[in-house]
Amino acid sequence: MNRPPESALPQGFQFASVNCGLRKSPNLDLGLILAESPAVTAGVFTQNLVKAAPVVLTQSHLREAGSRVRAVIVNSGNANCATGANGMTAASNTAKEVARRLDCSPEQILVSSTGVIGVPLRVEKILAAVPTLVQAASRSAESFDAFTHGIMTTDTRPKWAAARCRVGGKTIRLLGCAKGAGMIHPNMATMLSYVVSDVAIQRRFLQKALDDVVGSTFNAITVDGDTSTNDTLLVLASGHAENPIINQANKDYERFVAALKKVCHSLAMQIVRDGEGASHVVEIEVRGAPNDKDAAQVARTIAGSALVKTMFAGADPNWGRILAAAGRSGVKFDPHRTDIHMGGILACRKGVEHPFSERQAHQRLLREFIPVVVNLRAGKGQARIWTCDFTTDYVHINAAYRT
Amino acid sequence: MNRPPESALPQGFQFASVNCGLRKSPNLDLGLILAESPAVTAGVFTQNLVKAAPVVLTQSHLREAGSRVRAVIVNSGNANCATGANGMTAASNTAKEVARRLDCSPEQILVSSTGVIGVPLRVEKILAAVPTLVQAASRSAESFDAFTHGIMTTDTRPKWAAARCRVGGKTIRLLGCAKGAGMIHPNMATMLSYVVSDVAIQRRFLQKALDDVVGSTFNAITVDGDTSTNDTLLVLASGHAENPIINQANKDYERFVAALKKVCHSLAMQIVRDGEGASHVVEIEVRGAPNDKDAAQVARTIAGSALVKTMFAGADPNWGRILAAAGRSGVKFDPHRTDIHMGGILACRKGVEHPFSERQAHQRLLREFIPVVVNLRAGKGQARIWTCDFTTDYVHINAAYRT
Repeated sequence: MNRPPESALPQGFQFASVNCGLRKSPNLDLGLILAESPAVTAGVFTQNLVKAAPVVLTQSHLREAGSRVRAVIVNSGNANCATGANGMTAASNTAKEVARRLDCSPEQILVSSTGVIGVPLRVEKILAAVPTLVQAASRSAESFDAFTHGIMTTDTRPKWAAARCRVGGKTIRLLGCAKGAGMIHPNMATMLSYVVSDVAIQRRFLQKALDDVVGSTFNAITVDGDTSTNDTLLVLASGHAENPIINQANKDYERFVAALKKVCHSLAMQIVRDGEGASHVVEIEVRGAPNDKDAAQVARTIAGSALVKTMFAGADPNWGRILAAAGRSGVKFDPHRTDIHMGGILACRKGVEHPFSERQAHQRLLREFIPVVVNLRAGKGQARIWTCDFTTDYVHINAAYRT
Repeated sequence: MNRPPESALPQGFQFASVNCGLRKSPNLDLGLILAESPAVTAGVFTQNLVKAAPVVLTQSHLREAGSRVRAVIVNSGNANCATGANGMTAASNTAKEVARRLDCSPEQILVSSTGVIGVPLRVEKILAAVPTLVQAASRSAESFDAFTHGIMTTDTRPKWAAARCRVGGKTIRLLGCAKGAGMIHPNMATMLSYVVSDVAIQRRFLQKALDDVVGSTFNAITVDGDTSTNDTLLVLASGHAENPIINQANKDYERFVAALKKVCHSLAMQIVRDGEGASHVVEIEVRGAPNDKDAAQVARTIAGSALVKTMFAGADPNWGRILAAAGRSGVKFDPHRTDIHMGGILACRKGVEHPFSERQAHQRLLREFIPVVVNLRAGKGQARIWTCDFTTDYVHINAAYRT
């Protein structure tokens, strides 16, 4: 059963999901995370200049009321992006309606949307469903499971991850979920992710923790190189675990960061694994770059190459495409010193082919997880980026999304 | 008949092509352009840090003997890239063998290769075929046609273009051909293009002419964002038209540049049209950018987006993906002022959907050539980039290229 055990649920949060009519019934398309008491919240958002209305609204609400968030409401089926003033009004009215039901201020409500861009949101369907949604909220694995389904679009399965750690003698629980595929390079019309925890933590340390882990988790994956207009990652902390509040970067903070990283890493990997049409997860590890930034640039260029990604779709050990992608990354290195391992097999040594069994290599590349190591021998910089293969199914999914 | 008329052949050049055994017989895989007398030559080459051996050799030969080139020899079936010292020796021995047959110095011979990367080149097959190749050379449309076939890899058809202009009372002919799909963003394992002309021109003005036209032709197209290791564009001028030599940027120079641009533009368009798996050519025109450079950056980001390209494969008027790609281009503009036309239909006005007929738009997007105009209303900068759609056939072709 792809559902967390009841024991994984942090204290202080309830969940719900309903079909409000944005997607065909009986698909869940409207989800709610309810904080039983005001929650401290941190967030990171899309860097796209084109931001969906709910992203603009949520950023504004976080600035005003980030220490006392009461709920996150999320719809799938429509991104409410490029929808003008009506889109902003729709997002704002959604927050107001939830606030009215929870008897709190609209700033305490965060809003997300995912789906098609540029189509007016039929917000009346959401507003009509809010009473039922709020009433349905409960603290159970079943309702969390419903929430994870309600935020799906082209996802083939829900994605969740749990972790726990000890802080000041108390057990802290973290439970997260995600949809879509990417943060810097997300898929389709959005990456959304929500993590709830019962940890007691100061808001600035919660934001710092999130900023610390996002670079090596969500921001280290790519599916298709397209950055969404709606990307949102929120972490809500209820404080119900009653640990001594984390208000400095001490051992407690580090334990919490490690647990948060575990959850975010797992969700990021699940996103890549469920990348549209993907059948393999490919880890691109670059070593020996002049510095870590250069390593990341080389790794990203390889991970984003259509020729590399289609090669993995065919389990074809064509390492020359990896070297060629590295060569156009803009980073200076000597191709004649470069080694490339694919699936544990040394295929290129000092820039030329190292004899290997094509059949064995092909077999290795048929595996679900494929590690690739590129050693530039030009320094100590290193980075890891995760990508997926590029299959005909990706094209099928995206060639007829809207019509 | 996809072959130029005899009257399009410039004076002073012969062509040939044979099967030397790098590709399965009877596929032509070795081509020759022979200059009857030493030709002035200009070239532009891949910017990839990883450069194939023949590119390194040809750049060196051009520096030494760019005013007296006698031949260009081109093989398909193997890129001779990432092949180490043996690869350099192979390219060098190829030039030497042709030079021996033509009784000239090896520096007067230019070499190109295209095909798979990282596999040793069986140069002995090339060397054995050189005598036949040289002997077969003739000044005829048939032999030019054979040459255009001999350089093909995944191309579905040969690509050629001709132009003429008047210089100092003489008729100047230009005849060019190309394989592959791109220059900055070329396809597969290479874009190769060769243009021959009987114009008399100083070498520095020939290079200047080439540099002037390449930006808005070969460098303005993209197929898959991957820059090849072998890209080569050469222009050879025999001087046999006996016009007063072009040695300044006067009207004669301008007429020649216009004719060269016509040939390069046509070849570039043919490359995009024959992009792997492509069924549409999409022109991305960005207007109203802060400046031309920003316009090109926005246009390139849109033209390279997998979501945009798959959308055109499905003839899906999902303009939101175009706006979202522009938004992540790094150029500052106000999405709320942006207009988008697709296939002549205004789909987005001031950042929101402008009512249009989905059916009519779908019909327009089924056409072979699709103009897209994005007006940012943020200045006077403009640029045009050509791309193709991204189909399942692209994946089929590239998922099993080697194995």
